[in-house]
Amino acid sequence: MDTFKLCPHFEAAFELLGKRWTGLIIHSLLKGAKRFSDIQDIIPNLSARMLTERFRELEKQGIVVRKVYAETPVRIEYELTEKGRELESVMQEIQKWAEKWT
Amino acid sequence: MDTFKLCPHFEAAFELLGKRWTGLIIHSLLKGAKRFSDIQDIIPNLSARMLTERFRELEKQGIVVRKVYAETPVRIEYELTEKGRELESVMQEIQKWAEKWT
Repeated sequence: MDTFKLCPHFEAAFELLGKRWTGLIIHSLLKGAKRFSDIQDIIPNLSARMLTERFRELEKQGIVVRKVYAETPVRIEYELTEKGRELESVMQEIQKWAEKWT
Repeated sequence: MDTFKLCPHFEAAFELLGKRWTGLIIHSLLKGAKRFSDIQDIIPNLSARMLTERFRELEKQGIVVRKVYAETPVRIEYELTEKGRELESVMQEIQKWAEKWT
């Protein structure tokens, strides 16, 4: 059996994408910037605490940016960065597979 | 803000792929059938208990088959089904993104 080693880049990507809810959050943001409450509407089973945690991780990873609009009341939106938007092709492949096999 | 609903197929696929280690296990099996110990060599941080659990889920989902060869000693290998192999394009997209962004 050939010894096959995991690519560290691939492992790092799965460390990120493999976290529960992350994929669905990214998928939702591919349609455009969303408010916190919008994501909760789209993913009802996702708690506010978990969404806060996932947004913090995604911001840290440079995949999401948090935009604050100084309106009254203040409007806060979450948006994908270029790095985040480039996950679209991954999501499209998952969608194709999902439609055929789930 | 348009109300955008998650596709149930997509959600089901992420429910599966979004589990920790699952993606790395599938990625390892794309190189061909592997024994339990081979996967543990490839993914050192993955415990035997967790690997057993993931294999059971993947078998139940029809993504992996467990093949028993009546040799001495008995040889057991895990192999992707067609449904599993068709995840290759998803893995390739993740690899491309990972090489650019991680």
